[in-house]
Amino acid sequence: MQAIIKKIRVSRAALAMVRDANDPDRVFDLIEALSASSDATQKTVARMSRDPELARVLRERPRLGRLDLEELGRRPKGTLGRTFADHLSENNLDPNLLPVLEAPDAASYVKAHLFETHDLWHVVTGFPTTSEGEMGLQAFYFAQSGSRVPMGVFVAGLCFTFLNNFELCEVAMPQVVRGWLLGRRARRLFGTDWKTLLDRPLEEVRATFGLELDKVDTILREFERNRLSVATVPA
Amino acid sequence: MQAIIKKIRVSRAALAMVRDANDPDRVFDLIEALSASSDATQKTVARMSRDPELARVLRERPRLGRLDLEELGRRPKGTLGRTFADHLSENNLDPNLLPVLEAPDAASYVKAHLFETHDLWHVVTGFPTTSEGEMGLQAFYFAQSGSRVPMGVFVAGLCFTFLNNFELCEVAMPQVVRGWLLGRRARRLFGTDWKTLLDRPLEEVRATFGLELDKVDTILREFERNRLSVATVPA
Repeated sequence: MQAIIKKIRVSRAALAMVRDANDPDRVFDLIEALSASSDATQKTVARMSRDPELARVLRERPRLGRLDLEELGRRPKGTLGRTFADHLSENNLDPNLLPVLEAPDAASYVKAHLFETHDLWHVVTGFPTTSEGEMGLQAFYFAQSGSRVPMGVFVAGLCFTFLNNFELCEVAMPQVVRGWLLGRRARRLFGTDWKTLLDRPLEEVRATFGLELDKVDTILREFERNRLSVATVPA
Repeated sequence: MQAIIKKIRVSRAALAMVRDANDPDRVFDLIEALSASSDATQKTVARMSRDPELARVLRERPRLGRLDLEELGRRPKGTLGRTFADHLSENNLDPNLLPVLEAPDAASYVKAHLFETHDLWHVVTGFPTTSEGEMGLQAFYFAQSGSRVPMGVFVAGLCFTFLNNFELCEVAMPQVVRGWLLGRRARRLFGTDWKTLLDRPLEEVRATFGLELDKVDTILREFERNRLSVATVPA
């Protein structure tokens, strides 16, 4: 019975997002619906706890907390903190306006941590906050975690794009490919204590995580090469 | 008004396929609905006709026609024809049981040609006839053509997989990446007079089209490398 109610809730949230994926509330509703079942959450936590490193993260629960954006913006150019501050101001984002979610247990930590670090993931993976960039980043999350939430958000976003902005599909697909390849190759970003990395050069942070942006972007460029040439099979 | 009727027809066919993408009739219904509007078809033909090579294909309309599968199966191992015959018999497919669609004009040719050559595309791209292989092949079609039909089939297939067979998403994603990269890199397969290539070694045909299977498969393997290792950021 609970499963049926959940399915209905997910379907309604997914259809609402397919109708308007540009409304962030629709995206949050779908995330809520997908992660609402306590059963599913417990399974996720149990699965994560079998990995010693993740078990440690779920015990220690490193948080980003409130950030002094002015102070971050004064850090040296090229540091993660400074690039993060620039990213937020360019996109008119102020994370301090969002509620800091409580994390009294492992399950609520997973959500709170993903919520407060989302824009840092944008910065280190290099995905813009456009809809195609968000789809690429969801593919990255899915490649790293295999979780239902990012895959559901990605699929709903792709449906929305197909139905309402078809031309964007051809722009979104390489971003999705980029997200998958980067995400499979990189070390796990989940559970990172980002506070301790804000002073490091962004390029060093990317290298430490095995985030090979140049390599993936080179592949994507290289594979565009022959696209419009014509098949000429010699006799 | 016509646009609204088309949208309803596409939505109904898409939802039916999302409920059961394993039924080939549901897939064909969606293809029909997506390509039904004569307006859209005329636009596609007009767009294709602006490319001199495609304009020639649409005039000459090379067809595969009836195939003698027994005779194909006796050709030397490694030829396109022999591999095609083996592929059909392994998958219990007999294209001669399907109706050969008429192609009196350019628009009907596009459909008839794609219909009768679909299994040859499986052979040259190396995608299996599993559902994840079909999704990869649809991504390949879309990468080559930018058309609404393969993108729609891919999106509906992905929705079906997400809702009914979530574990398969992690298997399907690398196939989608494979399809996109192969498709962007390769020369255009559409309009090929496949009859003239059946005696050629498959590897030679792939090379002629720039279908770099080894290269793409190597990339996919290589990018799996660090997936499960843990982020250890040195102090």
